[in-house]
Amino acid sequence: MAAPAPSLPPANLPGSTDDLRVAGPLRHVQTARFDEPLPLELGGSLPGVEVAYETWGKLNAARDNAVLVCHAISGDSHAACHPDDPDDDPGWWDELIGPGTDNAIDTDRLFVVCSNVLGGCRGTTGPGTTDPKTGRPYGADFPAITVGDMVNTQRRLMHHLGITRWRAVVGGSLGGHQAMTWATGYPDAMRTCVAVGTSPRLTSQALAFDVVARNAIQTDPSFAGGQYYGQPQQPDTGLAIARMLGHITYLSPAAMDAKFERDRHQPRDLNTSFEKRFSVGSYLAHQGQKFVDRFDANSYVAISLAMDRFDLGHDHATLMKTFADTSCDWLVVSFSTDWLFTPAQSRQLVNALTQSGKRVSYTEVTSNAGHDGFLLAEEIGKYGPLVAAKLGDIDASAPPLRDHDRHLLDFIPAGASVLDLGCGSGRLLAELRDRGHQTLMGVEVAQDKLIAAVRRGLDVIDVDLNAGLPAFSDRQFDVVVLSATLQIIENVAGLLDEMTRVGQRVVVSFSNFAFRDFRKMFAEQGRSPKAEAGGGSYGYEWHDTPNRRFPSIADFEDFCTQRGLAIHRASYLDTTTGAVVEADDDPNLNADLAIVEVSR
Amino acid sequence: MAAPAPSLPPANLPGSTDDLRVAGPLRHVQTARFDEPLPLELGGSLPGVEVAYETWGKLNAARDNAVLVCHAISGDSHAACHPDDPDDDPGWWDELIGPGTDNAIDTDRLFVVCSNVLGGCRGTTGPGTTDPKTGRPYGADFPAITVGDMVNTQRRLMHHLGITRWRAVVGGSLGGHQAMTWATGYPDAMRTCVAVGTSPRLTSQALAFDVVARNAIQTDPSFAGGQYYGQPQQPDTGLAIARMLGHITYLSPAAMDAKFERDRHQPRDLNTSFEKRFSVGSYLAHQGQKFVDRFDANSYVAISLAMDRFDLGHDHATLMKTFADTSCDWLVVSFSTDWLFTPAQSRQLVNALTQSGKRVSYTEVTSNAGHDGFLLAEEIGKYGPLVAAKLGDIDASAPPLRDHDRHLLDFIPAGASVLDLGCGSGRLLAELRDRGHQTLMGVEVAQDKLIAAVRRGLDVIDVDLNAGLPAFSDRQFDVVVLSATLQIIENVAGLLDEMTRVGQRVVVSFSNFAFRDFRKMFAEQGRSPKAEAGGGSYGYEWHDTPNRRFPSIADFEDFCTQRGLAIHRASYLDTTTGAVVEADDDPNLNADLAIVEVSR
Repeated sequence: MAAPAPSLPPANLPGSTDDLRVAGPLRHVQTARFDEPLPLELGGSLPGVEVAYETWGKLNAARDNAVLVCHAISGDSHAACHPDDPDDDPGWWDELIGPGTDNAIDTDRLFVVCSNVLGGCRGTTGPGTTDPKTGRPYGADFPAITVGDMVNTQRRLMHHLGITRWRAVVGGSLGGHQAMTWATGYPDAMRTCVAVGTSPRLTSQALAFDVVARNAIQTDPSFAGGQYYGQPQQPDTGLAIARMLGHITYLSPAAMDAKFERDRHQPRDLNTSFEKRFSVGSYLAHQGQKFVDRFDANSYVAISLAMDRFDLGHDHATLMKTFADTSCDWLVVSFSTDWLFTPAQSRQLVNALTQSGKRVSYTEVTSNAGHDGFLLAEEIGKYGPLVAAKLGDIDASAPPLRDHDRHLLDFIPAGASVLDLGCGSGRLLAELRDRGHQTLMGVEVAQDKLIAAVRRGLDVIDVDLNAGLPAFSDRQFDVVVLSATLQIIENVAGLLDEMTRVGQRVVVSFSNFAFRDFRKMFAEQGRSPKAEAGGGSYGYEWHDTPNRRFPSIADFEDFCTQRGLAIHRASYLDTTTGAVVEADDDPNLNADLAIVEVSR
Repeated sequence: MAAPAPSLPPANLPGSTDDLRVAGPLRHVQTARFDEPLPLELGGSLPGVEVAYETWGKLNAARDNAVLVCHAISGDSHAACHPDDPDDDPGWWDELIGPGTDNAIDTDRLFVVCSNVLGGCRGTTGPGTTDPKTGRPYGADFPAITVGDMVNTQRRLMHHLGITRWRAVVGGSLGGHQAMTWATGYPDAMRTCVAVGTSPRLTSQALAFDVVARNAIQTDPSFAGGQYYGQPQQPDTGLAIARMLGHITYLSPAAMDAKFERDRHQPRDLNTSFEKRFSVGSYLAHQGQKFVDRFDANSYVAISLAMDRFDLGHDHATLMKTFADTSCDWLVVSFSTDWLFTPAQSRQLVNALTQSGKRVSYTEVTSNAGHDGFLLAEEIGKYGPLVAAKLGDIDASAPPLRDHDRHLLDFIPAGASVLDLGCGSGRLLAELRDRGHQTLMGVEVAQDKLIAAVRRGLDVIDVDLNAGLPAFSDRQFDVVVLSATLQIIENVAGLLDEMTRVGQRVVVSFSNFAFRDFRKMFAEQGRSPKAEAGGGSYGYEWHDTPNRRFPSIADFEDFCTQRGLAIHRASYLDTTTGAVVEADDDPNLNADLAIVEVSR
C-alpha cells in the first residue's frame, strides 16, 4: 500500500469520527491476565485471556459505584483522558466522562472501567495474540467470537477488580450490544443499562456493508488467509477500503454535504495510492490509511463478524422473551439521522422493554450527524443529561401543579399504575410518585420536556402517539391519561382504541370548543374561537395553531357513543373563574375544560 | 477470483436490479463506425468511434418520431426485446418500451434508439477497444470522458440515422444525466426531456461510494494499472466488490429487509471465494460474480468517473443558468425511497426549471424500491402514464367544471398566466387552456390527481406547499390560485407571502367556517360545524378531518389586514342554494364559500 499518511490539518467539521481520538501510546492501560480457559459461545475455547483496560475515579467502599463503558468496533480502552496526567490525550467519549457534575459520568463520584474488547488489537487477546500452542499469532486460527464472549471476558475483569455489580453498563453502537448482552445475560450484575445508537441486531443494509468490507479485506492478496503477521506485506489496502466504507455509513448524507460540498473538486494533496480526485476521496483515503496504522485486519474481521452475529431477536415476540428476565432500568438513545443503527431499531428495543414492564426512558436525539452522533459533543450535550439522571443525578425540584392537574388527580385511585401520554416535563407523574405510586410511565415527544422529566427521575419515552401504543401491552396500566393533548392528535379514534386496550381506565382532559365565550365570539362576530388570555388550546390564531382537533364536550360524548366507549365519570371546569361546573348546569356551554373517564 | 457463478434460482424479490436483464448475445445490435476524430471535453480526442445500438419501430417520413433512450452505468443497448424475434431476451426497460398503447413508449408509433455509451464494454468504443496507435486495447490509456462526450457520440449516431430532432430523449440515473446534457447542450435537437431517478450532480455520499468502488478495482493487483487485457488474471475481485457495493445503494433499506430478513442466516450455497455467511452475503457474492462475466473493470472506472464529474450546478443560481437556454418540455420523476438519487435532488432540478419558465411536470413516485424503482414494473406502472402523456398520448376528455370554478374563472383575466396550487386533476387549468391561456402550471401532491392532470397535457409538479414556492420566481405569474386548499395548509402566512411574491394577483377560495348553518349548529347545539351533505371542507367529523384550518370570512379579512395584504375583490357564494351573496348582505353569515383576490 501507500506510504504512511502525512500529517494533515484537522478535517473540516469538528468532532466527527475522523477525530475518534485513539491515543497513540496507551499511557494508562493496565493489563489483567486470566489463565483459566475461556469457553466460547460458538464452541471451543481460548486457553486464557489478557484484558487491557483503563480506569477513572475510585471504587468506593460499598463497591457500588463502578460503571463499565463499552467501546464500538474501532475504539479501545481510552474512553477519556486521565485528568491528573497533563500529557494524556483526550478519549473517544471525553465529553461524557470526567470529573465533576459537568460530566454525565462523573468520575469524582463513579469508578469508571473501560476495556479493549476480546478479539481487539489494542491490548486484549485477539487474532494478533500469540497462540501458546504454536508460538505464533493466532491469525486465521483465532476462533469465532461473539458479543457474549466479549462480555464474559469483561466479567473476568469485573471480578478481578472486586466489583460484584455494576452501577451501570454504558455503550454506543457495538458498545450498546455489549451493554444489552450484560443486561440479558447477567441481570443481577448491573443496576442500569445505557444503550446508545444501537439495535437489537443489524439491519440487512448494515450487514451488507460489513460483508463488502470483509470481502475487501479477505480478498486482499496480502491477507494470506489471515496469516500475514511477520510478512513483508499486510492487508493494508483491504483494511483501508473497509474503513472508507465504514466512514460513509457513520455520517448522515447532510453531514457529508456539509463536509465536502464546499470544496468537492479540491481534494487534499495526499501521498496515497488511493483515488484522490474529489475532496471526499482524499478524506476517505486519509481515513483509510490512518486506520491501518492502528488497527489489525484480523481484528476488524473478527469483531465485525461478532457484531453481525449479534441478534437479540428479529421480531417483537422474540425481543420480549430476550428481555423477560432483565432487572436493570434502561436508557435507550437514538439519533434522528442515524441510518446505520436507526431510530426504528431503538424503538423495537423500547417497545419490547416497556411491554415487558421494564423501567425505560428513550429519546431520539434530533441531530444531523448520523451514527457519529453518539460521539459528538453537540449530541452528548443533548443525551448526556439523561445519562446523568440514570446515574443518579436527579433534579429533585417539584414542578408546580396546575389547577387542572389537581382535578385530574381525583380520577386516579391511590397507588394505581399510570401511563401519562403527553406527560410534558412530568408534573403529574412527579406528583403521583410523591404520593407513593410505584409504576409510572410517560410519553413525550418534545425533547426539552422529556429531558426535564427524566432528570426528575421519571421514565419517559419519545414515541409518536399517532402510531398507536405498540410499546404497551393489553391492560398494562390501571390508568392511561391523555391530558391536554387530544387537540394535537391526528388519529383520535385509533389512539382512543389503543388507550382503552392498554389501560383499565382511560382519563382524557380537553378544552371545550363550545364554551360560552367561544360560542359568543363565533355566533355574534363570526370569528374562529380564540382564548383572550392566550395559552391553552385556544390561545392561537386560526392560521398558526399547532392544534388540529377542536371538539366540544357534546362532540366528544357523541364520539364515545359512536365508538362504543362508556363514560364513567366526568368533571367540568370553568378555568376562567376556577369554578366547577355541575353536570346539570350545561357544561358544554359553561365549562372550558372537561376531564372524562372512559372505558370500552 | 472464484469460479464462474453457478446457475442459481432467481432472487427472492422479482424485478430488482439483480434481474437487470442484459441479453447474452446482443442479437439485434447494429454498429455504426465514425472515422472522424471525436474531440473530448477534458482534452484530447479519440481517433474515431464505433457505436453499438438497437432500434425498435420505424422512423416516419417526417422523421419526427424518434426517441433516444439512454442507459444507466451497467446497462447496454438492449432496452427492450424485439417483438418479432421470439427468441429475444427482455430488455432492461421492457415494461416501458414496446408495441401498442400499453407501453408508455409505443414502438408502433415511435422509432426508438438505444446505444451503448461511450466508454462502455457492450459494443461502443471504450477502454477495451483496440487503440489504432498501438494495436492493443486502450486500457489505462483510454482518455478521461464525460457525459458530454457520451452525448456527442450519440449525436453522430443521430445524424447517421437521418434524425435531426428527437421527439424525446429519455433516461434513468446516468441515463437521466445524458438526457439533461442533450437538453442543455443541444436545445434544438429535442422536443421533450424525460429524466427519471436522476440528479443535477451526485451527492457527496453517492460520490463517496463510487470512490470506494473504484479503489477496490484499482487496487486489485490484477488491475495492473488498467493494462490487464490478455493477462491471465483480470481484476475480477475488485470489480465484483464494486458491484456488491453498488447493489446496496440501489436498494432501499426496506427492500433489503424484505429480501433478506426472512432467511438472514440461510445463505445460498455458492461456489465463491467471497463471504457467504448471511443470505445478503450470498446475494452480493452472486451479483458480484455475475457482473464480471459481462462487464469490464476499465469501463466501470471510466463511466463511473464520468458520472461523478457530471455537474449541472451545485446551487440554484447555477442550475438556473444551466437550464436558461433549454427549449424542450420536461418530465422529472423521482422515487420516495431513492437515497442514491434523492427526491430532494430532483426538486432542485424542478425548481430551477420552473423558475426559468420551462414547461415541466414532476412526480415523486411513492415506492419502497429505492433507486431500483426506475427499472421495476410496479413503479413503471406509476410513472409510465406520465411518460406516455409527454410523448403525446393525451386524455382529451374535459373534466366538468364545478359552480365554484366558474365563479373563480371570473377572477382570471383573459390570457393571463396562471399557477394553480392544489390543482387536483386539472379541472380549472384545462378550462383555461381551452380558453386560450398559454402559460399554465399546477401544483398537486396527490399522485393519482397529478397523473390525471398530466395525462390531460397539463404541466403539474408535486411539491409541498408548506415549504413555500421555491420553484417559482418573483412575479412569475399573472395569477396564483389557491382553490379549496387553504384548509390543509399548515403554514398559511408563509404560503400567502410566497403567493404574493410569485403572482401579480392572488386568488384564494375557501369555505367559510362562520356560515349561518355552522353558527347555528355551534351556538345552539354546541357541536363542531359539519356540512350535512358531506363533501367540502366541513364534510368530516372533528376527529377525522384532514383539514387543519377553519377560518371565517371575517377571520381571513383580519388576517389580510394583519399581514399587509390588500383585498381587491371578492365573491361570496351560498353553495347550498347556488345564490351569490352580495357584499352588503353579511357574507360572513350568509355565504359558505368565499373567493378573494389579494395582493401585497
